[in-house]
Amino acid sequence: MKHHAATYKQELLDRVLPFWVNHSKDEQHGGFYTCLDRQGNVFDTDKFMWLQGREVWMFSMLYDKVEARPEWKEMALHGAKFMERHGRDQAGNWYFSLTRDGRPLIQPYNIFSDCFAAMAFGALHKIEPDPAYHAIAKDTFENIIRRRQQPKGMYTKNVPGARNLKNFALPMILCNLSLELEHILGEEAVNRFIPEVLEEVMEVFYLKEEGLILENVLEDGSFSDSFEGRLLNPGHSIEAMWFIMDLAVRLDDKALAEKACAIGLRMLEYGWDAQYGGIFYFMDLKGHPPQQLEWDQKLWWVHLETLVFLAKGWQLTGNAACLEWFEKVHAYTWNHFRDAEYPEWFGYLSRQGKPLLQLKGGKWKGCFHVPRALYQVWQTLEKAPAFRQQPVDK
Amino acid sequence: MKHHAATYKQELLDRVLPFWVNHSKDEQHGGFYTCLDRQGNVFDTDKFMWLQGREVWMFSMLYDKVEARPEWKEMALHGAKFMERHGRDQAGNWYFSLTRDGRPLIQPYNIFSDCFAAMAFGALHKIEPDPAYHAIAKDTFENIIRRRQQPKGMYTKNVPGARNLKNFALPMILCNLSLELEHILGEEAVNRFIPEVLEEVMEVFYLKEEGLILENVLEDGSFSDSFEGRLLNPGHSIEAMWFIMDLAVRLDDKALAEKACAIGLRMLEYGWDAQYGGIFYFMDLKGHPPQQLEWDQKLWWVHLETLVFLAKGWQLTGNAACLEWFEKVHAYTWNHFRDAEYPEWFGYLSRQGKPLLQLKGGKWKGCFHVPRALYQVWQTLEKAPAFRQQPVDK
Repeated sequence: MKHHAATYKQELLDRVLPFWVNHSKDEQHGGFYTCLDRQGNVFDTDKFMWLQGREVWMFSMLYDKVEARPEWKEMALHGAKFMERHGRDQAGNWYFSLTRDGRPLIQPYNIFSDCFAAMAFGALHKIEPDPAYHAIAKDTFENIIRRRQQPKGMYTKNVPGARNLKNFALPMILCNLSLELEHILGEEAVNRFIPEVLEEVMEVFYLKEEGLILENVLEDGSFSDSFEGRLLNPGHSIEAMWFIMDLAVRLDDKALAEKACAIGLRMLEYGWDAQYGGIFYFMDLKGHPPQQLEWDQKLWWVHLETLVFLAKGWQLTGNAACLEWFEKVHAYTWNHFRDAEYPEWFGYLSRQGKPLLQLKGGKWKGCFHVPRALYQVWQTLEKAPAFRQQPVDK
Repeated sequence: MKHHAATYKQELLDRVLPFWVNHSKDEQHGGFYTCLDRQGNVFDTDKFMWLQGREVWMFSMLYDKVEARPEWKEMALHGAKFMERHGRDQAGNWYFSLTRDGRPLIQPYNIFSDCFAAMAFGALHKIEPDPAYHAIAKDTFENIIRRRQQPKGMYTKNVPGARNLKNFALPMILCNLSLELEHILGEEAVNRFIPEVLEEVMEVFYLKEEGLILENVLEDGSFSDSFEGRLLNPGHSIEAMWFIMDLAVRLDDKALAEKACAIGLRMLEYGWDAQYGGIFYFMDLKGHPPQQLEWDQKLWWVHLETLVFLAKGWQLTGNAACLEWFEKVHAYTWNHFRDAEYPEWFGYLSRQGKPLLQLKGGKWKGCFHVPRALYQVWQTLEKAPAFRQQPVDK
């Protein structure tokens, strides 16, 4: 497995990052283009806040962790300036999208715009310690915490009280975000925060009998027999399990890492398409038809996050199933998502594994999952085993 | 072509309507189940207002136009009672969905719930002339007209003024709805109303140079180079063209019928999948990747509405291309969507034409497009040519 490290590193540095450096910068209006075709040509100029924030985070993190390349810092600052100038409404909520020149287009209905903005400014502050960046990260995080019981706010279409569901995505992202922002929030605040999100992810959304993680549960944690309640998103749960493994390292808790590893492997077995290979996008717990017509498609992030999960699972627990699955998912992912002719990867494949869209970036695919996963796998494979020699009960 | 009439009639009466009569009635709480699996078993019990209204309309219309079967009237009244009791908020707006027992679940954010409710109570009033049904149809229609500039109301996520788009679906539905409700609204009101919706559909959303109909244009009618602005939905435009042909008959305007026929044929040629057959769901005017991941799937309603369009086009204009295309689309549709083993038809196929979901009804597929199209094609093929002998200039 270790021999893959160089492959992931080389793909990241030589074929993926240059694509974004070369094609995503809007020199005229600031910020990043993300709608880029196979060759890197811009096909739409709207600026989506998730992807602005994620790209700022990406280049800041790489500058911090890999190498202090001036062009990476310049990319991060370029995006951050646009975000800082145009990204928020008067109450400090982050818009979902802006026009090319920074006018607000879609309202701040989506709390993940705020999550990725906080992540961006948190990472940027590590490489450019401007107190303004610290304040943006902190204020945005606090705003997320204030809004988290009603993340859609006035934009929700649900009648209050009829079927109050809560969604897995926010506690899942908060697992990751709390670690990303520890230098902003302080160790103590993160210590207080961790048990709560851990409980949500590992107890509330986790169906013990089935060994599966649900995307939505009722407010009291019980199962809702509805389209939303039956929904499974294997890639989402598997990604969450590597966030949990990062928390396990932070808490020095091997048992937690092993539990996360077991759940992720179960979701992977469940979500694997035995007929065509790859991992389904959506499934229904009871095997009913999901409402998402794209349920059987193969998405880049699902497979890349699974590789990160498997690398970490192997590194932290030594579980041989991680090794076996890594080789299988690695082969599928590199054969189907990687574009041998042009840099960056395809994002959306049909069930059969053929590109469904030719794009390299769009409304939801930016400079994030491909480079983050390449970085994470590379780094993980180069690391020495973590607590493999330690007893489970510390 | 005429020889197909009996096939369509028989499929409607023997294999499609019995499916809904046998499986969709909720005897305990009223209203209709629409989430039905391949055999007709209920897999979800939410009540979606679009589909409640459409099923009431369907059985009322059949009772009125085909045969006064008591079981059809009973079905219509069964659904209407549930809608009347539970379907509206205090201001008379129709909820998007209710729980099985009629509690509001999703707010009235979607004006098409109102459109199908008005259609339902209008048709019901023809077979059961209760003044309450007249009032519901009339009030609902007037409410649609009041709301139509801001159809999503407070639920819109668009920042006002940033990119004010208007959508093709509402004027398109109003073409059909105004004729459906002529007995409620009065001939004069419909006469006043028709030119306005006709202008929207045939001028504003129609791109003359390309011969194509856009799904969204800016408020002033101009093109928006954005995901929404570039969006094409061939099935939608083709369906609209048979609505327009119905209006042409109402107006005794052969030139209008010929224009609608030409536009529909152009959309069909544009939307046809030369590789696998069938009509694409979504396309991008500039050939860019659409944001809808289901863009290449083959949907039942697209193909059935196209058959209605082609039958009417042939009947009204005698255009030989309608005949040729009818045979081609008929063969594809009956071979791929019809389920030879169990009654009712599949709704969602992969690009290759294999069922993507096994359901016969769901959140969006109910007792509507299959039976309406079977009825329309059957009736149209049995009719004598309309204005084929007349000169174009009356």
